[in-house]
Amino acid sequence: MRLVSVDIDGIERPGAVVTGPDGVDRVLELRQFTGAGSLALLLADDVALDLTRTAIGRADHASLPRLADVRLAPPVRPQVILCLGYNYRGHVEGHHEGHVDGETGQDALPYPNVFVKTPNTIGGPHDRVVMPIAATDVDYEGEIAVVIGRTAQAVDESDAMSYVAGYTLFNDVSDRGWQDRSSQWALGKSVDGFGPLGPWIVTTDELPDLGGLQMEVEREGVVTVRASTDSMVYGVAFLVHYLSQIITLQPGDIISTGTPARSVQAQSAHLPLADGETVTIRVTGLGELTTTFVR
Amino acid sequence: MRLVSVDIDGIERPGAVVTGPDGVDRVLELRQFTGAGSLALLLADDVALDLTRTAIGRADHASLPRLADVRLAPPVRPQVILCLGYNYRGHVEGHHEGHVDGETGQDALPYPNVFVKTPNTIGGPHDRVVMPIAATDVDYEGEIAVVIGRTAQAVDESDAMSYVAGYTLFNDVSDRGWQDRSSQWALGKSVDGFGPLGPWIVTTDELPDLGGLQMEVEREGVVTVRASTDSMVYGVAFLVHYLSQIITLQPGDIISTGTPARSVQAQSAHLPLADGETVTIRVTGLGELTTTFVR
Repeated sequence: MRLVSVDIDGIERPGAVVTGPDGVDRVLELRQFTGAGSLALLLADDVALDLTRTAIGRADHASLPRLADVRLAPPVRPQVILCLGYNYRGHVEGHHEGHVDGETGQDALPYPNVFVKTPNTIGGPHDRVVMPIAATDVDYEGEIAVVIGRTAQAVDESDAMSYVAGYTLFNDVSDRGWQDRSSQWALGKSVDGFGPLGPWIVTTDELPDLGGLQMEVEREGVVTVRASTDSMVYGVAFLVHYLSQIITLQPGDIISTGTPARSVQAQSAHLPLADGETVTIRVTGLGELTTTFVR
Repeated sequence: MRLVSVDIDGIERPGAVVTGPDGVDRVLELRQFTGAGSLALLLADDVALDLTRTAIGRADHASLPRLADVRLAPPVRPQVILCLGYNYRGHVEGHHEGHVDGETGQDALPYPNVFVKTPNTIGGPHDRVVMPIAATDVDYEGEIAVVIGRTAQAVDESDAMSYVAGYTLFNDVSDRGWQDRSSQWALGKSVDGFGPLGPWIVTTDELPDLGGLQMEVEREGVVTVRASTDSMVYGVAFLVHYLSQIITLQPGDIISTGTPARSVQAQSAHLPLADGETVTIRVTGLGELTTTFVR
């Protein structure tokens, strides 16, 4: 299933994307399964998910609003946003994330390099990223985010996938200037709205794992990143296990699995994002997330 | 005023501490001013704060429950928890926080070193810190947290203090093992419950600023830290200004102002916290926060 949060006059309501015989994507509201609560509530409820599946099958497609006509909110509003640095082979330290000493690439890291973004960063798939006056050097990173479905505390790696509700796209936007001001990247990663998320969650019944997916990131229509998820260093099951040992992951929390390296051309020609530029993240089976950056 | 959140059967309600003519601290519930909402709602509402002040003056002290008999929740439940590293002169880099290269002390840092803790870290003043099985090297840091009272976005330093509701105590608990696993401290800082907060918020009408306060931290009754807030490097007004340029601070969010260095003896004899140990943070005018650590 593809699950969304629909923004209706500022109220966020869970919905499912239903593709009709005409190939048009429409949105089925799912209020009845969540008590008008959030999509995160739905993700945590196996019975409601089953009922949703049935409701999608029975939906009167023609009567539903077109997906293109609704405003999407972020599918979830995580309290905990954990992000991986250097989690694709070829994205070596120093290339970017911040200043890290040493010459070794991430393959030599004994542990995942994990950082945190604050909840104020989360934006919806239709929100623009507003670069504040204080921003100096804004950059994008196309990533796949794992969405937690069930409360996960110290789960075994072998069982970890059962805590995953699905996957969505995430733009781990950074201000490199603020990020590099001190040893900790936190501020450059935590600017308001610097985390567009969406457009939907593809649940694990439709996409069981992240193997063999192709990711492309385009800036202003030019592909700057092209990679396979098979280059990922730490996989989903390990990450859920690893992180849940110390942080109880809640439904709706996300683990963003890191960005692949940019192409050499894109890296050498790189400039900070400017007013009006757009970045699109596109991954097989997960759709695409296009974000416009404005001053 | 001293404002608390009282935990009544798992529901958190705002209250004010009222000291009677007998010197006994009692708690006045403040539901009428918040629509049974959180203390953060109260902090954001000047009229409600004025009414609270009046209600404290008129309270029938003898009829109120004793503070010692109620269970306190964390005074606020911040979404954004920003913490300072190396923010006291004498707490030089390398001493601890994590691994930072170079010999320079924090006086030479051109910018504040800010890191983030996730919301799952927040604990109440009566909660024990449960060290998870995966924890390897748990450590404490006694700090003063600034509690935001009004939504603060890109505020001038000269006006920044008007966005501060008050101050409370914060134990920035870390797992040094997890903290040191990679360049980013995030995981070692974000373990469930590794952020005891409280016991109350002292509002700025009672404590306008942090000048000249004495801090003591005791471990198992032995003083390990003794410092004056006059050794703080970056002050409250600057921090609110600086951080609000990129993160819109919301009522109830906190900025923890960093820990002073341990005494040389305490540092040389330092061991990870063990099951059953207690740590007390005590600051002039802010009371004390005692936390028990258990396995």
